[in-house]
Amino acid sequence: MKNKGVMFIISGPSGAGKGTLVKELLKYPENEVSVSATTRSPREGEIDGVHYHFLTVDKFHELMEHNGVLEYAQYCGNYYGTPSAQIDAWLSEGKNVILEIDVQGCRQIKAKRDDAVTVFIVPPSMEILEKRLRGRGTENDDVIAQRLLAAKGELEMAGEYDYVVVNGPIEECAADVMAIFKAENIKAQNRETMCELLGR
Amino acid sequence: MKNKGVMFIISGPSGAGKGTLVKELLKYPENEVSVSATTRSPREGEIDGVHYHFLTVDKFHELMEHNGVLEYAQYCGNYYGTPSAQIDAWLSEGKNVILEIDVQGCRQIKAKRDDAVTVFIVPPSMEILEKRLRGRGTENDDVIAQRLLAAKGELEMAGEYDYVVVNGPIEECAADVMAIFKAENIKAQNRETMCELLGR
Repeated sequence: MKNKGVMFIISGPSGAGKGTLVKELLKYPENEVSVSATTRSPREGEIDGVHYHFLTVDKFHELMEHNGVLEYAQYCGNYYGTPSAQIDAWLSEGKNVILEIDVQGCRQIKAKRDDAVTVFIVPPSMEILEKRLRGRGTENDDVIAQRLLAAKGELEMAGEYDYVVVNGPIEECAADVMAIFKAENIKAQNRETMCELLGR
Repeated sequence: MKNKGVMFIISGPSGAGKGTLVKELLKYPENEVSVSATTRSPREGEIDGVHYHFLTVDKFHELMEHNGVLEYAQYCGNYYGTPSAQIDAWLSEGKNVILEIDVQGCRQIKAKRDDAVTVFIVPPSMEILEKRLRGRGTENDDVIAQRLLAAKGELEMAGEYDYVVVNGPIEECAADVMAIFKAENIKAQNRETMCELLGR
């Protein structure tokens, strides 16, 4: 029988490099990433099933009523959430399932699934975080200042997470996260192994 | 400043392959293994400071009185214990310090050092354990039967440990343990990183 996979929640402030990290992690065949669902309209270039599952409000409600979302939130009148069906299918195939969600979403999931392992990604320094936020070149000084303040607030939440990983060079960060995945896979397999050994 | 190292306790039944595993782990420069102290006389071929630190009873008592042993036990009128000085020195150098000790010793250390990480090594199956015990060729059937019974009893203790690792092919087992070491190093570094980021 195949061992059950582990659900990994990845959070961290904007500019910590979560997106880049997840892309790097997806190079390993044992990792899968959950795609969120939303009721907002697709933006230019966004592909259904890749960037989001774009759902109608009725369909989203239906999912919620049938216990089909692990966590959800509303922003600007739209729903955003994590559908559970694909995640459960991957877990039963023994995959590592990665969820890139915020602290509030993480709390909702931990309340339902206490075996989810949580990883908080932080920048090497506040200076580097600022540089990364500016590097996008899309925001003015006021927005940058606001984002830095928000990031400081989010960093205070790191203590709620099982692991904190510093995202300096991306390959190192991905290797650190893969070591965590491996250790947690071993931990999850403990119970089964012991049952077999003791003939239970 | 260098990050503090982590203390890893490795236990498991006789025949699980702890000795072979520790030898494999010592190929990595970041790992060190604690050498036990004993008041028994050296056997042929045993080297002081390698197999054991061979101490007089007075010297052992002195260590105990000055809080210099992490755990100890008496067998057949001799003391066996884990001196702490070298361990603390390695930890402050950022090393992984490996202690190969039994379940009772592990309990004594966890009571003093709750940051010690505990790993229980198990054989892939009871059949393989029996084969390994017989493979040594030194014991008769009665002794083997006793050892197997003792091993079953010890396996019941696995639940007290942070991780259980199956020791099949030694390279895989060592890789699993190294992943655990890495994940736990990352965990230990969390606090420092967060303090720096938040300027505390």
